[in-house]
Amino acid sequence: MAEVKNGRIIFNSIPTGYPEPGKTVIYDNSKTINLEKTLDKGTFLLKTLVVSIDPYLRGQMRDKSVQSYSKAFTLGEPIFGYGVGLVLRSNDAAVRVGDHVYGTLIFAEYHVYKLEDISSMRILDNKHNLPWSVYVGVAGMPGQTAYLAWKLFSQAKKGETAFITAGAGPVGSLVTQLAKRDGLKVIGAAGSPEKISFVKSIGADVVFNYKETDVREVLKEEGPVDIYWDNVGGAFLEAALEYANVDARFLECGMISSYNEPEKPIKGMSNILVKSITMHGFIVSRLAQKHPELLNEFYEKIPALLAKGEIKYTEDVTRGLDKVGDVLLSVQKGTNKGKAVVLVAED
Amino acid sequence: MAEVKNGRIIFNSIPTGYPEPGKTVIYDNSKTINLEKTLDKGTFLLKTLVVSIDPYLRGQMRDKSVQSYSKAFTLGEPIFGYGVGLVLRSNDAAVRVGDHVYGTLIFAEYHVYKLEDISSMRILDNKHNLPWSVYVGVAGMPGQTAYLAWKLFSQAKKGETAFITAGAGPVGSLVTQLAKRDGLKVIGAAGSPEKISFVKSIGADVVFNYKETDVREVLKEEGPVDIYWDNVGGAFLEAALEYANVDARFLECGMISSYNEPEKPIKGMSNILVKSITMHGFIVSRLAQKHPELLNEFYEKIPALLAKGEIKYTEDVTRGLDKVGDVLLSVQKGTNKGKAVVLVAED
Repeated sequence: MAEVKNGRIIFNSIPTGYPEPGKTVIYDNSKTINLEKTLDKGTFLLKTLVVSIDPYLRGQMRDKSVQSYSKAFTLGEPIFGYGVGLVLRSNDAAVRVGDHVYGTLIFAEYHVYKLEDISSMRILDNKHNLPWSVYVGVAGMPGQTAYLAWKLFSQAKKGETAFITAGAGPVGSLVTQLAKRDGLKVIGAAGSPEKISFVKSIGADVVFNYKETDVREVLKEEGPVDIYWDNVGGAFLEAALEYANVDARFLECGMISSYNEPEKPIKGMSNILVKSITMHGFIVSRLAQKHPELLNEFYEKIPALLAKGEIKYTEDVTRGLDKVGDVLLSVQKGTNKGKAVVLVAED
Repeated sequence: MAEVKNGRIIFNSIPTGYPEPGKTVIYDNSKTINLEKTLDKGTFLLKTLVVSIDPYLRGQMRDKSVQSYSKAFTLGEPIFGYGVGLVLRSNDAAVRVGDHVYGTLIFAEYHVYKLEDISSMRILDNKHNLPWSVYVGVAGMPGQTAYLAWKLFSQAKKGETAFITAGAGPVGSLVTQLAKRDGLKVIGAAGSPEKISFVKSIGADVVFNYKETDVREVLKEEGPVDIYWDNVGGAFLEAALEYANVDARFLECGMISSYNEPEKPIKGMSNILVKSITMHGFIVSRLAQKHPELLNEFYEKIPALLAKGEIKYTEDVTRGLDKVGDVLLSVQKGTNKGKAVVLVAED
């Protein structure tokens, strides 16, 4: 009974464009794990409850020789990313049976970890009884991205205008709500009627479907832009440069337009001088490491606001670790309908 | 005797590429001025001693319909820019005969001003007896550009590496000296053997001729770059993005590569995320307006350091207002041998 199947998501081939379900990663359940095997000192056994599918994972599906801020996946080995797991057994005093662990987990149903295996690790104190999936979304890495960068870089002033791309995503939707709480006018971009409705429902003043409407037309009408939250790069960044206000702040969070296609050069960079723009490029793990006080503030404030319904979020929940390959693609294409999470097991 | 010829530099045609001597601007001495004519209240008569020829002037040689941070020149009217003038007569209590006035002057031998006509105006207290030309160079707008932006944005830490373009210019050479005083390694780019010698003489650790050596090769060898001082844009900016260190600061001061040719789009902007780069675009007049305390600090410190020889500078002095057209071109081409100034008259 203790020997059970242990499904895993294996990195199978490096994609050239979008990741391909059944090819880029494959679901493998040929291995088993003995859940009662004696644990080495300093290790603990985790049952994976939820894994997070985020745009940045595309960058790890690369040849190991290419340097980047994130670790490349290893062909033939399981991929890894943010998740929440339940401690089934432990031989480390810092981790107790029944604890819920957040951090970068191996995409497997079960795995034995040492503490140092898990980046951004945190034992979750879920005092507001939120679903565990929320802790990889608006109360996890994407929410931290929004919260830390907004607090550190936005210099938001009441009455200013913020342009927020991927406004329905877990990052963009929290940024939108933080901007509205700070008294800004928010222009949001999203890619489907459902996403547009959601972005409107959280308070954005102007929301447009970027697949139907030219971003430049919108910014010409509704700008100039004081704060640009970039999740896209490419033509959106060019439009923001063109319609930026003097002293604008650009929060460079992501450039999904270049993740699956060759990166296009950016026109109009001289606007950075002409308009005295400041551009902040950032990676949330570095911000959290440099500003632990802000990370603690995030965990104190955001789950409480979520529990009270004062911050809203959407999720697109898929059940079963075997579905990871499909969800990886939908997140790159933007066809997911909310924060993409894969539920692996019940608590 | 009081009626004298008043030579002026007239904006004659909008250039499409580099400004053309005798075409873009022309020297006109058909007008006269009566130096003894009664002055209206609130006006004063200035004799222009020196005018400054700087790269940014190219941006004002444009069609008035194009918006930018600087005022477009008017066809058929005199151009204007930084200079120093001597007050010959005054009917404004704030300005006394014998005062030396710094600010944006009309490029004419004489002119009657109101206070509000002159941007960035300052009555110079030349207690170290520096040549007046220095007050449009390292002790003027270019020096302020270097000093204010370095203090505000560089976050320089001892042992870091700075890459400084146009290292022999009045901005780049002060930046180089500030960086060395802060204990940084400096990589300097310049475009002639004389300029390279000068940049070495002020302490730069590595200096290369960008016309002969590929900037990428130099940065690959001598980087990564913690602070990039950009006067050039284009391929230099791309190379700096490629060889930037994590947490690099980019001080976006100028992009002369796009002033006389169509602006090329910039490759590799995703490095701004990957390396958590912060880019600060700025215009010195806005910095000075926001940070008057830093401007006063500049005027207290820099002329004193210049007088003691602790800060060095070079000048490329041309005599006669009629030469402005030639100097405008040489500054755009980078063939000037030091800070370009035109001496219009003796004190």
